[in-house]
Amino acid sequence: MLILLTNDDGIRAPGLLAALRVLRRLGEVQVVAPETVQSAAGHGITINGPLRTYPVPVDDETTGTSVEGRPADCVKLAIQKILPQKPDLVVSGINSGANVGINVIYSGTVAAAIEAAFLGVPAIALSLLMDRGVPDYEHAAEIFFESIQRIISNGLITGCVMNVNVPALRAPDRPKGVRVVPQCVRPWSDQYDKRLDPRGNPYYWNTATFDLHKDDQHTDVAALRDGYVTITPLMFDLTDSKMLDDSRVKSLNG
Amino acid sequence: MLILLTNDDGIRAPGLLAALRVLRRLGEVQVVAPETVQSAAGHGITINGPLRTYPVPVDDETTGTSVEGRPADCVKLAIQKILPQKPDLVVSGINSGANVGINVIYSGTVAAAIEAAFLGVPAIALSLLMDRGVPDYEHAAEIFFESIQRIISNGLITGCVMNVNVPALRAPDRPKGVRVVPQCVRPWSDQYDKRLDPRGNPYYWNTATFDLHKDDQHTDVAALRDGYVTITPLMFDLTDSKMLDDSRVKSLNG
Repeated sequence: MLILLTNDDGIRAPGLLAALRVLRRLGEVQVVAPETVQSAAGHGITINGPLRTYPVPVDDETTGTSVEGRPADCVKLAIQKILPQKPDLVVSGINSGANVGINVIYSGTVAAAIEAAFLGVPAIALSLLMDRGVPDYEHAAEIFFESIQRIISNGLITGCVMNVNVPALRAPDRPKGVRVVPQCVRPWSDQYDKRLDPRGNPYYWNTATFDLHKDDQHTDVAALRDGYVTITPLMFDLTDSKMLDDSRVKSLNG
Repeated sequence: MLILLTNDDGIRAPGLLAALRVLRRLGEVQVVAPETVQSAAGHGITINGPLRTYPVPVDDETTGTSVEGRPADCVKLAIQKILPQKPDLVVSGINSGANVGINVIYSGTVAAAIEAAFLGVPAIALSLLMDRGVPDYEHAAEIFFESIQRIISNGLITGCVMNVNVPALRAPDRPKGVRVVPQCVRPWSDQYDKRLDPRGNPYYWNTATFDLHKDDQHTDVAALRDGYVTITPLMFDLTDSKMLDDSRVKSLNG
């Protein structure tokens, strides 16, 4: 099995290294990941500039390729030019921070997995909820690995991204279980802190935090808050199919 | 009616000015748009740095606010801090280039509209197909305005983005009609041109072009290619609802 491993926190991120170490049990892992941190990069790609690449040792066994670009660029370039053949699986992560709820749309981690999915490669995005303590990526990687094994043994699904999140646990704590759940679509409550620079010009800091504690039940946000591993199948067709049949929309034809 | 106008080509783009001029017929238009070109920015947002803003004259009647950030930042900041009240409608565009097919996922124009939709404001994204000639934004704006008027008169739908594309037409040419169509999900055929810098280090140019001529029927790509205005309702819940009920996915619960 050939696995492409990427992320949005950059090729030197500890979450990527932890993922690499467990994924090796499944086959050959090649790492192509951003040279710099690309958090909240969304599904950007690089069209108007070149993508520089560099060899980067990830650990004693693996030298990866870093790309001066976005997570989705890494997947495109890896599949088209860097890997010897089309991979059997693309894994993106382990992200430092949960990608549940509306964060899914901003996430470079998820964007890399979605890019893989529409290039025809099964994809899994891995994200670890942060709390105020030091994250235990090695322990999280073992918990992710259990879900990855089950996803593979059930049959990888081309065109579908499995978005997997793990609670902020440390060894030997275990999640309460695994929940297959839809994405929560509650918006962030954005707040901006307005300041003036020394010359009197304004600038704004986004101070929003995504709160796991106020949510509806039966979503990824609620299950992660309650201590479960969450798995949400995602798609890349943004068409609102129900609305296609809504009379207010259908009657726009003409 | 209070309308927020934004885009991803930057506040000085001719497509934004053309949109401003027709939207004024509907009410008050406030412009908050990126300071610099943000094409293919996807749904990135700015979390780790401040957002600087500047007053920028858009034409004799309107001074807008430029934001050193992404299209989605502009919408968040405008709704939260810059506009006097929540707008009735957010319009993003006119983008220089079509946003049909898988381009929808990369598009900053569409990301701005989706951001508005999940903040609870009806949103319309406007994109003009480019050919080799000089684009006629004024003429395109009139054609977009016809669709905007129909969308408004049918009733604006909160949470739904109307993604509108217009063929590369010049006055007095008319589109063949309007088609409500789903997003085409065929991937780009990515190509990368590998080069070596003067020191022998590699870099890659993405040379892919999104070809309108090879597509399936009954999609946005096909209808735009055939000379129609296309309207696709988009959503921001990426959950693959069909897959939630697939036995391979359901059995991951545990």
